[in-house]
Amino acid sequence: MSFKEGDYVIILYRERKYLRKLVKGMSLSVRGHTINFHDILGKQDGQRVGEFFVLSPTLEDIILLGFERKTQIVYPKDAFYIALKLNVKRTDKVLEFGTGSGAMTTVLSYLAGEVWTYETSKDFYANALKNWEKFNLCTNVKAFNTNFLEAHFEEEFFDACFVDVKEPWEYLEKVWKVLKQGKVCAFVLPTTNQVSKLLSFMKPLFTDLEVMEILLRHYKINPERLRPEDQMPAHTAYLIFGRKRI
Amino acid sequence: MSFKEGDYVIILYRERKYLRKLVKGMSLSVRGHTINFHDILGKQDGQRVGEFFVLSPTLEDIILLGFERKTQIVYPKDAFYIALKLNVKRTDKVLEFGTGSGAMTTVLSYLAGEVWTYETSKDFYANALKNWEKFNLCTNVKAFNTNFLEAHFEEEFFDACFVDVKEPWEYLEKVWKVLKQGKVCAFVLPTTNQVSKLLSFMKPLFTDLEVMEILLRHYKINPERLRPEDQMPAHTAYLIFGRKRI
Amino acid sequence: MSFKEGDYVIILYRERKYLRKLVKGMSLSVRGHTINFHDILGKQDGQRVGEFFVLSPTLEDIILLGFERKTQIVYPKDAFYIALKLNVKRTDKVLEFGTGSGAMTTVLSYLAGEVWTYETSKDFYANALKNWEKFNLCTNVKAFNTNFLEAHFEEEFFDACFVDVKEPWEYLEKVWKVLKQGKVCAFVLPTTNQVSKLLSFMKPLFTDLEVMEILLRHYKINPERLRPEDQMPAHTAYLIFGRKRI
Amino acid sequence: MSFKEGDYVIILYRERKYLRKLVKGMSLSVRGHTINFHDILGKQDGQRVGEFFVLSPTLEDIILLGFERKTQIVYPKDAFYIALKLNVKRTDKVLEFGTGSGAMTTVLSYLAGEVWTYETSKDFYANALKNWEKFNLCTNVKAFNTNFLEAHFEEEFFDACFVDVKEPWEYLEKVWKVLKQGKVCAFVLPTTNQVSKLLSFMKPLFTDLEVMEILLRHYKINPERLRPEDQMPAHTAYLIFGRKRI
Repeated sequence: MSFKEGDYVIILYRERKYLRKLVKGMSLSVRGHTINFHDILGKQDGQRVGEFFVLSPTLEDIILLGFERKTQIVYPKDAFYIALKLNVKRTDKVLEFGTGSGAMTTVLSYLAGEVWTYETSKDFYANALKNWEKFNLCTNVKAFNTNFLEAHFEEEFFDACFVDVKEPWEYLEKVWKVLKQGKVCAFVLPTTNQVSKLLSFMKPLFTDLEVMEILLRHYKINPERLRPEDQMPAHTAYLIFGRKRI
Repeated sequence: MSFKEGDYVIILYRERKYLRKLVKGMSLSVRGHTINFHDILGKQDGQRVGEFFVLSPTLEDIILLGFERKTQIVYPKDAFYIALKLNVKRTDKVLEFGTGSGAMTTVLSYLAGEVWTYETSKDFYANALKNWEKFNLCTNVKAFNTNFLEAHFEEEFFDACFVDVKEPWEYLEKVWKVLKQGKVCAFVLPTTNQVSKLLSFMKPLFTDLEVMEILLRHYKINPERLRPEDQMPAHTAYLIFGRKRI
Repeated sequence: MSFKEGDYVIILYRERKYLRKLVKGMSLSVRGHTINFHDILGKQDGQRVGEFFVLSPTLEDIILLGFERKTQIVYPKDAFYIALKLNVKRTDKVLEFGTGSGAMTTVLSYLAGEVWTYETSKDFYANALKNWEKFNLCTNVKAFNTNFLEAHFEEEFFDACFVDVKEPWEYLEKVWKVLKQGKVCAFVLPTTNQVSKLLSFMKPLFTDLEVMEILLRHYKINPERLRPEDQMPAHTAYLIFGRKRI
Repeated sequence: MSFKEGDYVIILYRERKYLRKLVKGMSLSVRGHTINFHDILGKQDGQRVGEFFVLSPTLEDIILLGFERKTQIVYPKDAFYIALKLNVKRTDKVLEFGTGSGAMTTVLSYLAGEVWTYETSKDFYANALKNWEKFNLCTNVKAFNTNFLEAHFEEEFFDACFVDVKEPWEYLEKVWKVLKQGKVCAFVLPTTNQVSKLLSFMKPLFTDLEVMEILLRHYKINPERLRPEDQMPAHTAYLIFGRKRI
């Protein structure tokens, strides 16, 4: 793969990463070093260009550096775990609400047959669509600018569900109805108070309940002086999982 | 979905989970409560049976409770992250060695078009095949009971690579050759000494290097007394990532 | 220092530690190796005896291995931090309730002039006294088998306070009264629900509020294979601090 | 205690803390709110002044906000644990090198009878003395602007030792000589490579070896929305402990 005008590219300078669109005449300067985008055209994925490396953006790069954020996103450390924990096969239909900035939707779309995602905010909805279009993602996603509570489905329609809203307990009964028997539902919530409240509401409808948090710690990549980075995220969200019981 | 003879089933008693094959005449007793497998036949996924719930096993259940282990496995907290970090699409070919007990292979097979996996140990190889067959998994996996170093490929054949061997530095040049430009290679290693050594060898061949560890902490699911579990895994493996540079 | 009959001794076998009283005729067997206590008499602190090392117990050894526990103790990782965070000088008077098994009291007694400690349970109180006597500790501690709420003090009597009871909010007003202006009060609580409730009650009476948790991770001590232990404590208690406001 | 000219004071605005010397005519402005130091004179420790609280600095405040740093300091989360782990009594003599900015010395001085501390850098030495003088600390500390290796002691002179230098293995034999039998020596080191090297050198001279790291995670203090802070320190230092063996 070689880079051409209009492509998105990761420009790496030591451990700093920048995601840019290759537009002629543009350039990037980092700590006194400049890379002209003109010089990237025709270069290979992973090729060195002066002090820089140029790379095509990965799914994680796109989520962290390419998506416009109008909301708190689900971070890859959480999103990647949740997506596979949902136990989704390539023919499965997954439900998501709210869509937010569309990061979790994108990850789900890699695993599922179809993702149906609901977002009440006009602004967030438009932003998510724009994010996906920009990187040509989520072609198997059906996005709706409505409240999931107002949508009509046949019962036991979905194979998995991901919920990212402030008051998920208000949606639980409907989630329960539209999920197939025994299927997994996942939630993200920032505070312990919300987790407590959600658990109370989940107990009669879901089984195999789990609450957890994931901490990811990066190391400096100097082999002679191996040690963790100085700072790390202390918290993104609590993850809550359950399976529909009957 | 309703359970029938020969199915694998998760039997849940409070927070304890058991994975069993439904064989007539068998039963499970936990803390004075007994469930006869005969009574599970015809029950729905997620249904309550006496003091128990019965559920079909998820990918994570199968890896943690269903796979016979002849080696240390890649735990789901690490495997799920690595699999999506490898940036694999449904048409992609992924290389893995060594196969070990086949846990990571299984996760990769959910995302990739094909997984080619190499294992030198006859014993491990046979065990991995048995694990997949038992749960009808990995139908898009080509498994070889040979050393990856002895296998012949055209250059730039694979879209991603996962390496789980003791001395990965010995394989780096060949990995570099068979990977497409800019593609991701992931490694797991238990000790800091190995991480240091691997990083030294990676620097001339790979860019965008990352070293990290993932900690997953479970909480007790009592909403009135929300608190973390008493114990947690302190370490499974360091995760190392890089992208082929030229 | 050399060991004599009646002393307490740490017997170390590789990474396993045992705390024993040196009584003639006794012995300890670990993995097929036996040490007769008779052979420890006259040995020096830190001396090798066959496959074992013999050491005098430290404060941490005593708390973790020597104290009889009738309650959950405050672990050294938390106790050591709290004790110094209380900002206590050698002439200061510290208040503690409940005494529990007396672990935190012991740590406080290393730093303070006097520790006044209250415990309502007859059983716990007797056990704490026994623990201290056994190791000749806490000679600057005044222990009371009464409820702190029933004790009479002049106002602004104490320089610091440590609270380890289930419902600390019921004691807050009295704690506030007996603390000198601006002085630190520390609490330990196991659940997030209790932390939320305590914070609500603290806000009008205390300032400089802090809530935190401390994770301590041990490493295996093999220099060629440095890596964390497999398991670690995931949770002991949340630590809460505040300073008396006016 | 009421504040007077020349005192050091902690000025608290919500969760922000400032340590200042009370000099007439000075003031502090935070987010549009101003506190004139003149208005703090005569106020009580813990008293509210407009939008602020004024408090006398604690040991932790002084270390984190009051000490001039010419070196990486030992953070309170580590220093408090190490100090008590050294098992020091009020009549004990503790050895420390290098002094650095004097943070650990200060903590040790709270517990020990005497601290003897060595620092080769003229600059660091002068800075540490200045830090202690400023807050009237460390009156039981003997500080030397020399290399510990050049100092003369009788054997078995010290009851504990704390080492904070880049190449601690070069000092181990002398440390061993000047420590009493069975006594604790603690080290801090930033990288895994150093930890591995130190462990190799320690094994013949010390027993009861331990390597660990301490993670401290703060929570936001909103009782209705309890959750960890967004960021936390990922690494300060590895802590290594051993006891002199014979």
